[in-house]
Amino acid sequence: MGEFDVIARYFKRPARRAALGIGDDCALLQPAPGTQLAISCDMLVQGRHFFADVNPHSLGHKALAVNLSDLAACGAKPLAFTLALALPDANASWLAAFAQGLFELADAHDCELIGGDTTAGPLNICITVYGEVPLVNGRSLALLRSGARAGDDLYVSGTLGDARLALNALQGKLSVSASVLRAARERLERPTPRVALGLALRDIASAAIDLSDGLIGDLSHILKSSQVGASLQVDRLLPCIGCYPGSAYAKAEDQVDLTLEQWRTLALAGGDDYELLFTAPPGRRAAVALAAQSSQTPVHHIGQISANPGLRLLDAQGLLLPNPYASFDHFA
Amino acid sequence: MGEFDVIARYFKRPARRAALGIGDDCALLQPAPGTQLAISCDMLVQGRHFFADVNPHSLGHKALAVNLSDLAACGAKPLAFTLALALPDANASWLAAFAQGLFELADAHDCELIGGDTTAGPLNICITVYGEVPLVNGRSLALLRSGARAGDDLYVSGTLGDARLALNALQGKLSVSASVLRAARERLERPTPRVALGLALRDIASAAIDLSDGLIGDLSHILKSSQVGASLQVDRLLPCIGCYPGSAYAKAEDQVDLTLEQWRTLALAGGDDYELLFTAPPGRRAAVALAAQSSQTPVHHIGQISANPGLRLLDAQGLLLPNPYASFDHFA
Repeated sequence: MGEFDVIARYFKRPARRAALGIGDDCALLQPAPGTQLAISCDMLVQGRHFFADVNPHSLGHKALAVNLSDLAACGAKPLAFTLALALPDANASWLAAFAQGLFELADAHDCELIGGDTTAGPLNICITVYGEVPLVNGRSLALLRSGARAGDDLYVSGTLGDARLALNALQGKLSVSASVLRAARERLERPTPRVALGLALRDIASAAIDLSDGLIGDLSHILKSSQVGASLQVDRLLPCIGCYPGSAYAKAEDQVDLTLEQWRTLALAGGDDYELLFTAPPGRRAAVALAAQSSQTPVHHIGQISANPGLRLLDAQGLLLPNPYASFDHFA
Repeated sequence: MGEFDVIARYFKRPARRAALGIGDDCALLQPAPGTQLAISCDMLVQGRHFFADVNPHSLGHKALAVNLSDLAACGAKPLAFTLALALPDANASWLAAFAQGLFELADAHDCELIGGDTTAGPLNICITVYGEVPLVNGRSLALLRSGARAGDDLYVSGTLGDARLALNALQGKLSVSASVLRAARERLERPTPRVALGLALRDIASAAIDLSDGLIGDLSHILKSSQVGASLQVDRLLPCIGCYPGSAYAKAEDQVDLTLEQWRTLALAGGDDYELLFTAPPGRRAAVALAAQSSQTPVHHIGQISANPGLRLLDAQGLLLPNPYASFDHFA
């Protein structure tokens, strides 16, 4: 199977929205008048972002999901994506499953593949995604990291820490039951990009980011960009962990034997969560609740933004906790 | 040096044209009214597209050049690019030289880096480039592969085959003088994207493609997309090879000992040329000559498009030559 066969068999589909799709030197995209194009790019490398034996259907899903998650964090509506793929070989069943996982998620978000590149090389998946953000009277509705203000509420969506729990279990650092591993692994390998929530939060959230490196690290980007500080109610995060006893997601039989400190670490520095972390003025609490409801996405109020710089971690009694948590860094 | 230090030290610059550049979940680009966005993406892998010991300054240049070449083939004006980079380690001097080579070419084309991703992994450079194509009365001025018509002239720009000559010499398949190797290697490692020519050919060329896999293979894409055939005067290509004796580019002392057949192979199936192959109606010969002149790019008339499908290779006497030439394929 040659390079052009790979593209034709597994990836080429007729252009729907794009003026020109796969098959020329460039794709042509024509953003609607009065909109901005949001662009984001994520590269996934075997051994760093996924195991060599990962299910290719899940990998196709995740490669696009992590990119859609960036659009969600900007409040951008997915339009299209390009895919660059380095493959050790052209394995037909692997490619078919990868393309199926990729296109199932793409179709669910009406996001079309418009071009890319295919080459031989160590497995590497680089997707660049394009989304639409409206301009209202010349003002962009994009959610940025820089808009948090003192007094704003701090929220996080969905569940936290399960991806890291699965990673630790798969690496043999932790022993969990098969059913916990299955549920946690689903979160690691098939994250849900919070696109509907991001769209619903336009004009409500003051700042937003998606969680890829861990809550503490990603929150620090909001604080730095917005030049503010925050206090975080750490124990409000624990019920956000899917397998935490007493969380809305845990089943009674799924007990995981972790210390409180280990649970906190999962929530604060887990990474690979792909949830939205965002801020909104306290006057918009009803609007945030409505956005959560309309997008069918759980949202948790976990802290406050303050003018006082730095991050303060508070326990259930409001006492200050130490902050030894490191964010994930590819070169650290 | 951490991941965010790599970005801040070597790649982050203030946004000029983009509404939002590096440092948020997405970049924001706002194409001018009445334009389309041309998008192209190329992934370069160590060992496939470049040697491990390649000069990082040249590599930075080439990684962007091959992408700008795709914009040129569409007649698109460069606007911006995103860069995803997998690095085995964060080597300061390598990164500084790579970034310098990249930005020198970017600045020459007023093309700004607006975002990307950095990760650890086997060296892989994935650039996605964005260019602007005007719409005139709703009609796109993009040059496509599909517009060639029977009777059109077939042209190629600049020089051919030198990149492959350098590759063969570096792989020890061929022995050439140091000065020939230096000149040919410059073409292999620092190709010139024909952006000015592509812009000048808007509304003149009927079809265009950039040469990356070799002239025969890339011409076949035009023929297939346009549903036409072509005859190619093979020996008109030989003076396009920089080191061919008698070419405008060769120096008298730079003799290379190749058979006629080997010269033809270099020109027809060399690959990595990054020249423009294009067609135009015979009535536009003066306009093509003017476009070549205004863009300061040599252009050579090398054949004709015909309704008769397939490709006919003709020698200097107009006799039909066999066509044993294979295009480069990453999985073949």
